[in-house]
Amino acid sequence: MVITEKNIISFTIKTHTMTELSISSDNAKAAEESKSLPPKSDFSEWYNELLRIAEIMDVRYPVKGLYVWNPFGFSIRSRVYSIMRELLDNTGHLEAMFPLLIPEHEFMKEAEHIKGFEDEVYWVTHGGTDPLDVKLALRPTSETAIYPMYKLWVRSHADLPLLIYQIVNTFRYETKHTRPLIRLREITSFKEAHTVHATWDDAAAQVGVATRIYQEFYHRLAVPTVVSKRPDWDKFPGADYTMAVDALMPDGKTLQVGTAHHLGDNFANTFDIRYEDTNGEQVLAHQTCYGVSERSIAALISIHGDNKGLVLPPEVAPVQVVIIPIVFGEDKTVITAVNEVSDTLKQSGLRVVVDDSDARPGAKYYKWEMKGVPVRIEIGPRDLKNNSAVVALRNGGKTSVPIDGILAGINKAFTDIHDSLFETAARELNDRIRLCTDLDEVRDYIQTGIARIAWCGERDCGLEMEEIVGAGILGEPEDPALGKGDGLCPICGKPTDIVVLMARTY
Amino acid sequence: MVITEKNIISFTIKTHTMTELSISSDNAKAAEESKSLPPKSDFSEWYNELLRIAEIMDVRYPVKGLYVWNPFGFSIRSRVYSIMRELLDNTGHLEAMFPLLIPEHEFMKEAEHIKGFEDEVYWVTHGGTDPLDVKLALRPTSETAIYPMYKLWVRSHADLPLLIYQIVNTFRYETKHTRPLIRLREITSFKEAHTVHATWDDAAAQVGVATRIYQEFYHRLAVPTVVSKRPDWDKFPGADYTMAVDALMPDGKTLQVGTAHHLGDNFANTFDIRYEDTNGEQVLAHQTCYGVSERSIAALISIHGDNKGLVLPPEVAPVQVVIIPIVFGEDKTVITAVNEVSDTLKQSGLRVVVDDSDARPGAKYYKWEMKGVPVRIEIGPRDLKNNSAVVALRNGGKTSVPIDGILAGINKAFTDIHDSLFETAARELNDRIRLCTDLDEVRDYIQTGIARIAWCGERDCGLEMEEIVGAGILGEPEDPALGKGDGLCPICGKPTDIVVLMARTY
Repeated sequence: MVITEKNIISFTIKTHTMTELSISSDNAKAAEESKSLPPKSDFSEWYNELLRIAEIMDVRYPVKGLYVWNPFGFSIRSRVYSIMRELLDNTGHLEAMFPLLIPEHEFMKEAEHIKGFEDEVYWVTHGGTDPLDVKLALRPTSETAIYPMYKLWVRSHADLPLLIYQIVNTFRYETKHTRPLIRLREITSFKEAHTVHATWDDAAAQVGVATRIYQEFYHRLAVPTVVSKRPDWDKFPGADYTMAVDALMPDGKTLQVGTAHHLGDNFANTFDIRYEDTNGEQVLAHQTCYGVSERSIAALISIHGDNKGLVLPPEVAPVQVVIIPIVFGEDKTVITAVNEVSDTLKQSGLRVVVDDSDARPGAKYYKWEMKGVPVRIEIGPRDLKNNSAVVALRNGGKTSVPIDGILAGINKAFTDIHDSLFETAARELNDRIRLCTDLDEVRDYIQTGIARIAWCGERDCGLEMEEIVGAGILGEPEDPALGKGDGLCPICGKPTDIVVLMARTY
Repeated sequence: MVITEKNIISFTIKTHTMTELSISSDNAKAAEESKSLPPKSDFSEWYNELLRIAEIMDVRYPVKGLYVWNPFGFSIRSRVYSIMRELLDNTGHLEAMFPLLIPEHEFMKEAEHIKGFEDEVYWVTHGGTDPLDVKLALRPTSETAIYPMYKLWVRSHADLPLLIYQIVNTFRYETKHTRPLIRLREITSFKEAHTVHATWDDAAAQVGVATRIYQEFYHRLAVPTVVSKRPDWDKFPGADYTMAVDALMPDGKTLQVGTAHHLGDNFANTFDIRYEDTNGEQVLAHQTCYGVSERSIAALISIHGDNKGLVLPPEVAPVQVVIIPIVFGEDKTVITAVNEVSDTLKQSGLRVVVDDSDARPGAKYYKWEMKGVPVRIEIGPRDLKNNSAVVALRNGGKTSVPIDGILAGINKAFTDIHDSLFETAARELNDRIRLCTDLDEVRDYIQTGIARIAWCGERDCGLEMEEIVGAGILGEPEDPALGKGDGLCPICGKPTDIVVLMARTY
């Protein structure tokens, strides 16, 4: 590794509040450890190094597939999940919490569901040195933990709809290659909602609500998404159908970042969830469930980040503004002005750091760019003479802003940054979805992005398409502009108006 | 069960936002289920029924010692833990998150620690149908998950102190009688902090900081506490010493609601956590850890609640104000006034419900009293004529407040309620701590509260005191007014100035 001026800075988080993060001044050891970030074109390398250098996750925990949230990463997580809570709370959902451990007899009740998860479940078999009477599964997802309670809770049509969610850790014994935030053995941040409705149609409508909430959630993260109906062979085990939300990663693969499942009355039947309808009859309820995990943060980081490090939308950035005094000699006027600006912004609730450390400005820029701080304010003697400050946006652009109007200027910058991040990513996504006319073209194009291709809708044809292309059918997009079009099924040649998406997937 | 007018109300949480909770109008079934609350003098019965009727926890989950947080209870939990986060974040702590699963070889490293936990640990032995190569413990507490990372994170004196916490689920295979919020197999809400310091004295100072934070936390919950140094035989496995925070429950038993442990360099030695000191020497670090669980909520509920249900300090009440229009006939002026008051309060961030359901006022009072709503506002035509509203406090007292000054009136009421709850509880605690002169008196008195008794400080004498009394020594209180006094050890008769607390404990 080449030691450059840039990489001699240590990014150790200090033990004070997040906004007091300071550059540790030393030293040779830090230089030795802190490799510079590979270019984003080497996506996989870049991703792993970014998580390390920007202190999102520590991957050195001594069990495969389990990772540690560094405080800086955890702070992003907290803000991301605050958005999720806000959106769910404002749409009638209530937060609750159910146990992690599911007794074997409950877990084994729903046949399709077991088939889908039995290879992936961790089992607790011992308490102390004694074997347990009943084996306990670590929830891979909570249907079988929650629905025995729903049987008790749901009595009457007046109890419906029941909309409950929890944010918890779940577990999958992944045998594939694990990857932080993306493929985990402990999903630390699983937001799962479980709803109960009177009719199949009510449940279907709720699936639509769920995908709209998720799209709004991702919009807040400036992450554009595509919603599609997964093919039948790729639906959630035990569901009638599955809608999925996908994001496009920089390497052209899609990342499934949310799913919403219509469970019909399948689980209601298994767990005996019935309600008394308006005629006094006991009838089976209908259910949905929908989930998002820390993959949301993988998408957020991957899509916006660049060769200099993290790029974060202001709403989720642990530090939103860094102010760097440009000081020469003993003059205190710059520091005074910087502190005044900092106070003004903090009083409005902004998360602000003044970096008045001894490091050179270039080193400071490098550090805070790596951390994704959306706005950098520089104030020097020349700026003060003009009663202005230089405002540099992490995603590009620099302007001079009057100090008197600094708060309005920063708030506008925040809006601009978010919109610009979203527009850039949406353009990238649109540019990387291509209508293909045959499977050869699909096979080529999915090296770059998402292919659109006609499909007759028959399972056999779909499976053969996947086989030929060597990649999955994401499904029929909800957006008719993507999901409809006249074409011929590439396998059976039948005319069809269904267009599906195919992509390499995580 | 006697069906009374009061108990025909169902407390089912509706599926809308918490502040839209409404009374479900029916019915015979609700009457059949909703038993009225036993008197608080039957504490154990009262506690269980309160958790059910006020919808804090559902105990019907099909595994012993695992419980479900109802949305209403979870909402209290969220607010309680927000206070904890605020206090920790403001004292230099950073929130992070470490894995649940601890590999056997790490878990088994610290000999004293294993001895303390080996009978209580749940073991994951299988992934899917295959046995795991390495057994994985569900964390009973996270020293052995976190300290392998601290070995990597701590390098230099400049990295210290390191103050990190997480709020996670932990597991204990309890063989004793389990009880919701108090003795659990899944502790869903364990806040554990783990700190690293340069010297033993620095760590000791941090233990002091921790107990002060906890006392402040409990003060915010209006729960008075006593801090004492646990006797050596009751300290945390692997610690140099343990400070504990106890609350007095209504049945005269104490509940340990927080602990802070000085770990010395014991774990640093085991996990090889060293730092380079200012002389360039590699030296062992010193550590502390301190924790609080959902026992905090057990104390909160138990200490303040009464025969009518929950009593909650305004800061943690999911609903802070319920407004009840007293309406006769078709007159809309009352409803208009009620909505204006509601808007005024909501605009200031208060959590307000207008209960304009068809239920009779008495039924409404009963419902919202059960839920612990701190303030009830009643507005009727007569009040409107005087441009005033009746403000009734959940913990007693009713006044008339001018509608123009309603926000100030409610904010003052909130302060008064909190102070009054704390003072009442503090008086109760003080009244139930008695200096005893011999062990017979201790044995009698601990049926009611906490006994103070001289102790020479010798282990053998202490253990014999516990044996004779049939209850534990909490330890020497930090407060010299409680922990000092001239006396004779009741076993060996030696003069001593140490006074310890003894109590029946949960």
